[in-house]
Amino acid sequence: MIILNNQDFKVRNDAKTDIEDRGYTFGDGVYEVIRVYNGKFFMLDEHLQRLQFSLNEIAISYDVESEKLQERLEQLLEQNNVVDGAIYLQITRGIAARNHPYPKKSTPELYAYPIPVSRPLEAQQNGIGMTLVQDMRWLRCDIKSLNLLWNVMAKQKAHEQGYKEALFYRDENHVTEGSSSNFFGVKDGKVITHPANNYILNGITRIAILRLCEQLQIPVEERELTLAELEELDEAFIASTTSEVTPVVNIDEHKFNDGTIGEVTKRLQDGFEKLIQL
Amino acid sequence: MIILNNQDFKVRNDAKTDIEDRGYTFGDGVYEVIRVYNGKFFMLDEHLQRLQFSLNEIAISYDVESEKLQERLEQLLEQNNVVDGAIYLQITRGIAARNHPYPKKSTPELYAYPIPVSRPLEAQQNGIGMTLVQDMRWLRCDIKSLNLLWNVMAKQKAHEQGYKEALFYRDENHVTEGSSSNFFGVKDGKVITHPANNYILNGITRIAILRLCEQLQIPVEERELTLAELEELDEAFIASTTSEVTPVVNIDEHKFNDGTIGEVTKRLQDGFEKLIQL
Repeated sequence: MIILNNQDFKVRNDAKTDIEDRGYTFGDGVYEVIRVYNGKFFMLDEHLQRLQFSLNEIAISYDVESEKLQERLEQLLEQNNVVDGAIYLQITRGIAARNHPYPKKSTPELYAYPIPVSRPLEAQQNGIGMTLVQDMRWLRCDIKSLNLLWNVMAKQKAHEQGYKEALFYRDENHVTEGSSSNFFGVKDGKVITHPANNYILNGITRIAILRLCEQLQIPVEERELTLAELEELDEAFIASTTSEVTPVVNIDEHKFNDGTIGEVTKRLQDGFEKLIQL
Repeated sequence: MIILNNQDFKVRNDAKTDIEDRGYTFGDGVYEVIRVYNGKFFMLDEHLQRLQFSLNEIAISYDVESEKLQERLEQLLEQNNVVDGAIYLQITRGIAARNHPYPKKSTPELYAYPIPVSRPLEAQQNGIGMTLVQDMRWLRCDIKSLNLLWNVMAKQKAHEQGYKEALFYRDENHVTEGSSSNFFGVKDGKVITHPANNYILNGITRIAILRLCEQLQIPVEERELTLAELEELDEAFIASTTSEVTPVVNIDEHKFNDGTIGEVTKRLQDGFEKLIQL
């Protein structure tokens, strides 16, 4: 495997970072996971825009455009001959003696490499179960940062209990998103999802779905759901770069739609399928 | 410089970790900063106990005692001839292909090395200023994890505005702690500090101070302070491994005690001074 480190391509085994990389000591960095279908990046522009947003929010001086990141990522794809998969990319503030404030001089450290991803076709056909977990994350979930410990812990909790994904709630009036996905409910033909503010990560697949809803004339409400409302939903699904549109057939004990895939979810799955064939 | 990597001592330049160390991709690890005075660790037992607590809370299988960590840390001190300084130590969940849940098999990755620390005598004599910053951190601040991005951002905000430290508040009724220190107020001869729960990191110096208060018969209230109460305090100070007992002479525009060090703070500084001479 060939990896991209800043402007250089290296073999995987040479990809080691210093122990005082601030990504390692503070989680001081941001990342993206970009899907590749048929040898081409999917929604690369949107990923690079979000990456630039995350970098700006934590004041890492890295300009995606002037660094010609897109060009280098295309080369990385080619060098690894990725056809169906994903590229993981992270940029940290760089290497500096451990001290909280941003170092006066530090050069951002970029690593990008292919990760094995395949379409979760079984989950998409049969749906998944989610379990509610309190959202204990920080209040800047809109930044796609490397501070993912609670996401990791929640996903682990879900798996230990036999669920594929955790569904976060801040309090009984405020369901946010999954541990690595956005959450969507459907009620009376309307799609309901959390607004893209500091409580959630504005997923690229979420953006694709909102565009699809517009095309397909499916009404959307961007608002907080309550725990009580969850039980009244007609359908539910999650969306992310790796899960695409995956139906949710139950949340803990509560089943939706008799455990079958709902009609609106199906239309969005079909619509998404067409998008990725382009 | 010699660093400790798991059970091996290495030269600093060889201390590199794999890019798929979960500490690098998820901040999936915990740490300690242990002070060294006169060539000896200060409150090492308490640090190792807290380390074990943090490890347990995030289910990293590393047993401090059976791994003989104390012995190795003593060797690390000797090999580097540290007299007045500190050892930084972190343990991550280890190296694994990037995937949220805990990997079935992964070996914890430990790094420990000296970091330059000297006593902040000027700040202790003249006091420091703090600035209020909203506490946006996750809700498990009792775990000393590597997810430190908001701590870093808050410290940076403070420095940019000319303050040495940020003081976190969750809301107007809930002041928590500093970005890398515990906060203490003094009112009518009583020391007031946040209870050691999930909202703060229970500092080792905080523990030392509570013991000192008992010895010196200074009454203590462990409770939340409100923003309004801050202005009514007679004295304030912060405590941490590197700042020890450092008086706070102002929070934003508000000065305490006419900008001079209060009497209770002075007694605790003197008491702490004696502890570290032992």
